[in-house]
Amino acid sequence: MKKNKPTILIVNDDGITAPGIKALMETMAEIGRVVVVAPDSPQSGMGHAITIGKPLRLDKVELYDGFETYSCSGTPVDCVKLAVNLIFKGQKPDLCVSGINHGLNNSINVLYSGTMSAAVEGAIEGIPSIGYSLDDFTLQANFSHALKYVKEIALQVLANGLPTATLLNVNFPNTADLKGIKICRQARAKWAEEFDERLDPHKRPYYWLTGVFQLDDQGEDTDVWALDHGYVSIVPVQFDMTAHHAIAVLNGWKFN
Amino acid sequence: MKKNKPTILIVNDDGITAPGIKALMETMAEIGRVVVVAPDSPQSGMGHAITIGKPLRLDKVELYDGFETYSCSGTPVDCVKLAVNLIFKGQKPDLCVSGINHGLNNSINVLYSGTMSAAVEGAIEGIPSIGYSLDDFTLQANFSHALKYVKEIALQVLANGLPTATLLNVNFPNTADLKGIKICRQARAKWAEEFDERLDPHKRPYYWLTGVFQLDDQGEDTDVWALDHGYVSIVPVQFDMTAHHAIAVLNGWKFN
Repeated sequence: MKKNKPTILIVNDDGITAPGIKALMETMAEIGRVVVVAPDSPQSGMGHAITIGKPLRLDKVELYDGFETYSCSGTPVDCVKLAVNLIFKGQKPDLCVSGINHGLNNSINVLYSGTMSAAVEGAIEGIPSIGYSLDDFTLQANFSHALKYVKEIALQVLANGLPTATLLNVNFPNTADLKGIKICRQARAKWAEEFDERLDPHKRPYYWLTGVFQLDDQGEDTDVWALDHGYVSIVPVQFDMTAHHAIAVLNGWKFN
Repeated sequence: MKKNKPTILIVNDDGITAPGIKALMETMAEIGRVVVVAPDSPQSGMGHAITIGKPLRLDKVELYDGFETYSCSGTPVDCVKLAVNLIFKGQKPDLCVSGINHGLNNSINVLYSGTMSAAVEGAIEGIPSIGYSLDDFTLQANFSHALKYVKEIALQVLANGLPTATLLNVNFPNTADLKGIKICRQARAKWAEEFDERLDPHKRPYYWLTGVFQLDDQGEDTDVWALDHGYVSIVPVQFDMTAHHAIAVLNGWKFN
């Protein structure tokens, strides 16, 4: 059923006060009715975590003039679940957009990112979903160059829909000189951790997680390549994690 | 380089005192040198979360006679990262096993599960990795019927290796009458949430996340089917989330 004005759910993982979600709200307001449900505190790196050991809070807040906005005590994925069930009450929005993330979510980061996991959850709910991220993790990030692409990609998804059980992972290099859009695959890479060991005042050790991004992929069809060359990268993402090509291999094993 | 006694990293998400990890430790000790790194508290539903906003603790603990055991304040994925970097110091273990989870991690649960995400992280690190889960979420779960399969599957992985960038998701029905092993794909399903709304003593609402598993897949090649029919299910899992089949579709879109 086509409606003139689509309903758009906006979520993120940097929290409801992040400049990135404000930029996304203002852009989405140009094309639809916007409902914002975002964490009450930063939730970067929360992946697909959900809150099951303690209860959740969901509060309507007057934070941005003219926007219907809710603050949630849970994870980004919790935000999507609460929105679908308590705010939309099963009447699904036409689009779910997540971000704009302060920092890239290309390559393997799709797994660690709360922003991308919220978009994945939107897709699991059957809502066409997009995660947006910019290569600048600071609060001073400048999203302005990205916004025409943010809008254009959302309009295309609203017009065309997405293949079943897929969503989009959109990343922007941090430049005003964007070369256009590349459809990509997720680059093979990992984080090589280096834990920063310190001693607390009681002389007990504690560790800060830090890491170096380790690319193991020279392909020119990857999101890393596209971003390095000034393009907006779009990776279609799926949440079927089955390694279908490995089924035949395992069927060849002889179990006792 | 083949060694006589493989080194096996054991992790979980139910925490270091869970009966499931004890059963896994005892079984793995029959085939290798075991190192245990597990969360100091239950971390179910943590997905692929990592801890970046606060530091981590890692403590050697004397909890189980004869086992090298560490307790970690972070998520299951943190446990793997800490183990690889601080305990193994880059000298990778020969196998990473996660579980045995109290409760199934079949189908879409692979995304939400800390147990499976720890195994995914092991695979990202290049370690042959397996997640094990039993269909009984109680602390009284009886793992005994599963153990000969747990051992057999680990031995096969040590002997054969796994296809590049894949790992195994192994689930057990809660029965002594196991019919054997089925290699499966992840069933299409989702959780239909029902938030249980309550009022706190100050009359403010809060919500408990509950849900009903909604199967949308009648295939007889899925993990749900195998478990329903008394089989041990093995799904090969990959962490490339690219929807490769959707790339051509998106390349057909005309962007302005």
